[in-house]
Amino acid sequence: MRIEQTIAASIIAAAALLTMQPVAAQETLPSWNDMAAKARIEAFVYATVTEGGEGYVAPEDRIAVFDNDGTLWCEQPFYTQLQFMFDRVRALAPQHREWKSKEPFKSILAGDPAGVAKAGEKGVVELGMATHAGMTTDQFADIVSNWFDTAKHPKTGKPVTEMTYLPMRELLDYLRANGFTTYIVSGGGVEFMRPISEKLYGIPPQQVIGSTIATQYAIVDDVPVLKRLAKIDFVDDGPGKPAGINKFIGKRPIFVAGNSDGDYEMLRWTTAGKGPGFAMIVHHTDAEREYAYDRRSAVGKLDKALDEAGRRNWLLVDMKSDWKKVFAFEK
Amino acid sequence: MRIEQTIAASIIAAAALLTMQPVAAQETLPSWNDMAAKARIEAFVYATVTEGGEGYVAPEDRIAVFDNDGTLWCEQPFYTQLQFMFDRVRALAPQHREWKSKEPFKSILAGDPAGVAKAGEKGVVELGMATHAGMTTDQFADIVSNWFDTAKHPKTGKPVTEMTYLPMRELLDYLRANGFTTYIVSGGGVEFMRPISEKLYGIPPQQVIGSTIATQYAIVDDVPVLKRLAKIDFVDDGPGKPAGINKFIGKRPIFVAGNSDGDYEMLRWTTAGKGPGFAMIVHHTDAEREYAYDRRSAVGKLDKALDEAGRRNWLLVDMKSDWKKVFAFEK
Repeated sequence: MRIEQTIAASIIAAAALLTMQPVAAQETLPSWNDMAAKARIEAFVYATVTEGGEGYVAPEDRIAVFDNDGTLWCEQPFYTQLQFMFDRVRALAPQHREWKSKEPFKSILAGDPAGVAKAGEKGVVELGMATHAGMTTDQFADIVSNWFDTAKHPKTGKPVTEMTYLPMRELLDYLRANGFTTYIVSGGGVEFMRPISEKLYGIPPQQVIGSTIATQYAIVDDVPVLKRLAKIDFVDDGPGKPAGINKFIGKRPIFVAGNSDGDYEMLRWTTAGKGPGFAMIVHHTDAEREYAYDRRSAVGKLDKALDEAGRRNWLLVDMKSDWKKVFAFEK
Repeated sequence: MRIEQTIAASIIAAAALLTMQPVAAQETLPSWNDMAAKARIEAFVYATVTEGGEGYVAPEDRIAVFDNDGTLWCEQPFYTQLQFMFDRVRALAPQHREWKSKEPFKSILAGDPAGVAKAGEKGVVELGMATHAGMTTDQFADIVSNWFDTAKHPKTGKPVTEMTYLPMRELLDYLRANGFTTYIVSGGGVEFMRPISEKLYGIPPQQVIGSTIATQYAIVDDVPVLKRLAKIDFVDDGPGKPAGINKFIGKRPIFVAGNSDGDYEMLRWTTAGKGPGFAMIVHHTDAEREYAYDRRSAVGKLDKALDEAGRRNWLLVDMKSDWKKVFAFEK
């Protein structure tokens, strides 16, 4: 955040706190159609900030958590981090001649996605370790930043950094303008998201929760470094999401947004607190502007959470009808 | 934080950002004597907030990390969390008849500290698991909160919550008034500190980093809970502190305070960044008002960091001469 933004945000926050007036949604959610979804979000936020009301929540307890893949940015045709792994394998191949005859590396180098898919979860973990470990944390942050500077989405050809959902970015802004603290809680690697989370979402590194690999402190040339080890430390997905929220935040959120069954436990956890709790699911219904998928998708499968959304009063956001725009670059 | 404080803090922060004037130390560090230590802290903070200056650091990068035991509160004659374990063993003893003949429980129940000490680190881990696991996270938070309501320090007889160092609480306030975000980075259990960190230090749960035990998501009577398992997840001590900072914050701090060799790696890490970095060590030199200990202490041993403080330009704070008061309850 630049200093002007910091000042502006502080003044707006102070003003909002002094007057106890919610910041109105009509000004801050311009890409949402005026339908039930927008109205429900607005009603919840309004209740949250209305002192003396039944739904009031103190500012320090206004914690909002957002899944990333498929909730804040596009996860199709494959996860952004998987694309990063593929690119890293190609970049590192000259130093790894053995990859030419070893799966899943062989298929990546041959440009054969089907071969990669065959390697399964074990193959992805192997890929992750080969591309995410062995360097220092500072070196990895540079590798990631440099990759985001040039990586393009395979279908749209747009920079992957532009593949974020504009209505969701507006929602983040809207919540923050009403005193919420916004977090990412993603199955993705925390050190893959942190270098760009502020730029893309206005979310600073310390508010990004994700999967982690183990690090080891070492002194190299009298300088302390943290080496990234080829060892998974924590998987922040499914039941790991409530565990991650508890570990990193230590408070139960009151607002949650997800899009797949990997968010199911986080949706349950957020709406099982003593006070108010709001859950929403981004339902991918727009094959034209983005992708349409749910129960049978290999990426971002939404089945159980879709079944239970109604009876649990979780808001289903229909991308096709609820959003005026999906991406900022449209039109 | 109460709402009035939130408003006041927002306005002060906005005003400080607008005018770019540092909040002066003389108003905010009243329990510090006007000596070199205070002057060095003030000079660093002044440089940090002075835009255009060589030492300027943007507000979002003003991260300050504080050890807890022996840095923010008293750790003698034994760690507060160890005292909690002892009390829990006594409270739980009726349900554990086997403890009467099993160390280290037997010695605790017999009131024999020497016997407990003999059990060593393995004994402490066993104690920790017996008293910190097996319940849900919500239940544990209640147990901890209730304990802090009544626990007294064994030497002073004061509530343990009053055994915090007044000059350090002032330092936390002073840094925050100048746009810093303050964190605890402690070897202690994160879920032991979080229920009282806001009240004692003005530090919310999400800014408390510490050792963690594994949790497991489960549904009990259709309600999601997190069960605390008898399994250590992460030890936030020594080389674990830079790893913890990286995992939880994802940014390198620019200010660090510690008091023992358990903080050595965190001191190195904080002062090895590209920009400014300030490190201080609380040196326990006051046997009258608190305790005097360093190189040979079983608790809070300060040896290696004491040797290197001079050549690394780490500030050594002499509790006896630098602090007008140690505890708020004095006089």
